[in-house]
Amino acid sequence: MTSAPPAPRLLGSATGLSCRECGSAYEIGPLYACGECFGPLEVAYDFPTITRATIEAGPTNIWRYKDLLPVPSHVAETKTLNPGWTKLIRADNLAAELGMKRLWVKDDSGNPTHSFKDRVVAVALAAARELGFTVLACPSTGNLANAVAAAAARAGIKSVVMIPADLEQQKILTTAVYAGTLLAVEGNYDDVNRLASELAGEEEDWAFVNVNVRPYYAEGSKTLGYEVAEQLGWRIPPQTVIPIASGSQLTKVDKAYTEFAKLGLVEQTPYKIFGAQATGCSPVSVAFKDGRDFVAPVRPDTIAKSLAIGNPADGPYVLDVCRRTGGTVEDVSDDEVVEGMKLLARTEGIFGETAGGVTIATLRKLLATGQLDPDAETVVFNTGDGLKTLDAIAAHVGPTATIKPTMASYRSAGI
Amino acid sequence: MTSAPPAPRLLGSATGLSCRECGSAYEIGPLYACGECFGPLEVAYDFPTITRATIEAGPTNIWRYKDLLPVPSHVAETKTLNPGWTKLIRADNLAAELGMKRLWVKDDSGNPTHSFKDRVVAVALAAARELGFTVLACPSTGNLANAVAAAAARAGIKSVVMIPADLEQQKILTTAVYAGTLLAVEGNYDDVNRLASELAGEEEDWAFVNVNVRPYYAEGSKTLGYEVAEQLGWRIPPQTVIPIASGSQLTKVDKAYTEFAKLGLVEQTPYKIFGAQATGCSPVSVAFKDGRDFVAPVRPDTIAKSLAIGNPADGPYVLDVCRRTGGTVEDVSDDEVVEGMKLLARTEGIFGETAGGVTIATLRKLLATGQLDPDAETVVFNTGDGLKTLDAIAAHVGPTATIKPTMASYRSAGI
Repeated sequence: MTSAPPAPRLLGSATGLSCRECGSAYEIGPLYACGECFGPLEVAYDFPTITRATIEAGPTNIWRYKDLLPVPSHVAETKTLNPGWTKLIRADNLAAELGMKRLWVKDDSGNPTHSFKDRVVAVALAAARELGFTVLACPSTGNLANAVAAAAARAGIKSVVMIPADLEQQKILTTAVYAGTLLAVEGNYDDVNRLASELAGEEEDWAFVNVNVRPYYAEGSKTLGYEVAEQLGWRIPPQTVIPIASGSQLTKVDKAYTEFAKLGLVEQTPYKIFGAQATGCSPVSVAFKDGRDFVAPVRPDTIAKSLAIGNPADGPYVLDVCRRTGGTVEDVSDDEVVEGMKLLARTEGIFGETAGGVTIATLRKLLATGQLDPDAETVVFNTGDGLKTLDAIAAHVGPTATIKPTMASYRSAGI
Repeated sequence: MTSAPPAPRLLGSATGLSCRECGSAYEIGPLYACGECFGPLEVAYDFPTITRATIEAGPTNIWRYKDLLPVPSHVAETKTLNPGWTKLIRADNLAAELGMKRLWVKDDSGNPTHSFKDRVVAVALAAARELGFTVLACPSTGNLANAVAAAAARAGIKSVVMIPADLEQQKILTTAVYAGTLLAVEGNYDDVNRLASELAGEEEDWAFVNVNVRPYYAEGSKTLGYEVAEQLGWRIPPQTVIPIASGSQLTKVDKAYTEFAKLGLVEQTPYKIFGAQATGCSPVSVAFKDGRDFVAPVRPDTIAKSLAIGNPADGPYVLDVCRRTGGTVEDVSDDEVVEGMKLLARTEGIFGETAGGVTIATLRKLLATGQLDPDAETVVFNTGDGLKTLDAIAAHVGPTATIKPTMASYRSAGI
């Protein structure tokens, strides 16, 4: 007598959703808030046996970790942008300049649309299709808009991206080129967001990546942590510096390190997670320094627009992670952000976006204030591309000299 | 009696330089033109035994092919941007739209500074350092400037990049951020080029990547061909569509396919190479269609500025390759270039630069005119990033609709 094999799960190892606050359990579905306590829902798993060898035999993109994500087992055969497996760059020049022993830059500008958003969107897309959604949507002011429009184009499905109508033209172009539906909304980002939430309630076929399928979307950030650990030769780095927008990325990297250790893929070694914000939008840093466990919303005013979330949903969890691991949260001025961008470019040939400037500048500040150990191995994240935030450096860099096209003019310039 | 081991060669398997025209042989050095006939010099090799396994065990960048390049054997341990091993993307959506059976996009926008120039600059840098140069230099109007400044920053050496003073500000910023010497020259690109040649004669420590170390630099483009063949599972694609600027890239991809076959790494199967130009700078296409074996210079006038070389040095060799392999050379209007960029973005989520628009539009034209077989497997190159040529699409894409932040306004938009 043989029993029937178990039916394959819809989303791989994912078994359901559970509330981060009260632990209530839910079936896999387009839910994001707990019906009991309104806490955020998170994906629950029953992981199979996973070995380094099976991961190493996988594709050189995030799908090498598919068994650790809420995606169908055939995800690598579907049409996606195949983001991830970006470079972990040994940054000896920058380390020397900062007086550090060993420093790495996880450079996520190498993703298909040049930001880490390709990771979360790819996971959201894979889950959304299995859940029956036919449209990929989001409110956004930049990187997310690019990532959603491009991913939907590759997948051959409809996208609806909503942006403030007064967005910089270059951000409009880099989304519009993928030819999905692009709605310019006359209002600020809060207005766009509110309309998106209303639409999410009405349009049953639309998966708003960062709203109604957010629990799946957020899991995509775990791949940053998995990659760092694998690329270091299956080790957790003692110190990691991560930018904070909603705070989700930082908490998911912590989750990735924890999962890898639990699964026996890496040794459970101590590690510290540090959070980085721009002072003009630093509610988590302020809460950390005040010793609070809640985050008071602020009105953002910083050039680091991709981090400018004044009321970060995962702020409290960021405080938990940084305190639990012995890390801290720090913030830097816009001038320091620009200096951070220039420092990374000058020393390592990496032109990161403003968010990268925030983490590099924060790293420097953490060192100067003795919060981070210069002798302990450190990974710092660059999550986007300087090409998308050229305005930030426009007033700060330029030609060394302007000369006439003659040897005499060249010589007199004293190069 | 044991004999002493042979001294390691300065540049790996490279044994010297030889003239493409008269065959005169030269020792490895900073030479680029034949002393006998002024023909271009090319690197000569004595390749060791190279297997698929040794290549596959190498790093996931161009240094996996180091034994086939004029670089020192320890190159992977030096500070470089480690370009290459960019995605070869199965483009089923685009194939369906064009009525093709199997199409791939080799997407070199995934390189560190988002163009194929990172490949050639990395090889030039590696060779230049071994040859004793201490400064990396170039005249450029775009991608090459970015690549040289970034590579030199990583390597920790000085760079001198020369650009026309009236270049678009965004191209100035994306080079200046790496903090090398950036000389704005009051004149057009020809003026800049002439001054660069004068300087190359005077400044003995300066390696102008595309002038006095050009033979080494040019070899970097072979890695595009190697990667395509390896990524296809060690096969030469029957048809490859490649953009033409100087023409060097196209001839080096042909050389790569030939070398792989000679070394027994792939089967020697028939293949056709197709060249792509913008009509506004199409001297090679015109020569091909006229049945000539020489190229008459033109004054470029096209939005595809990264291909706008009016007097392409390798034009005659491109004609040779395309005729020998049974391919052709075709050109497309600027309007078609824009349509090509939009088509690639809409169908595959890849935002290529104008040069990518040229190859996609040329592919379409080759199909429409029966020059390319829709049933034979084809690889088309995208060699740069749309983010760097936003002006090209600015008048052609935009929001689908502009609405007020209300459900009523959304509904009346008829999305």
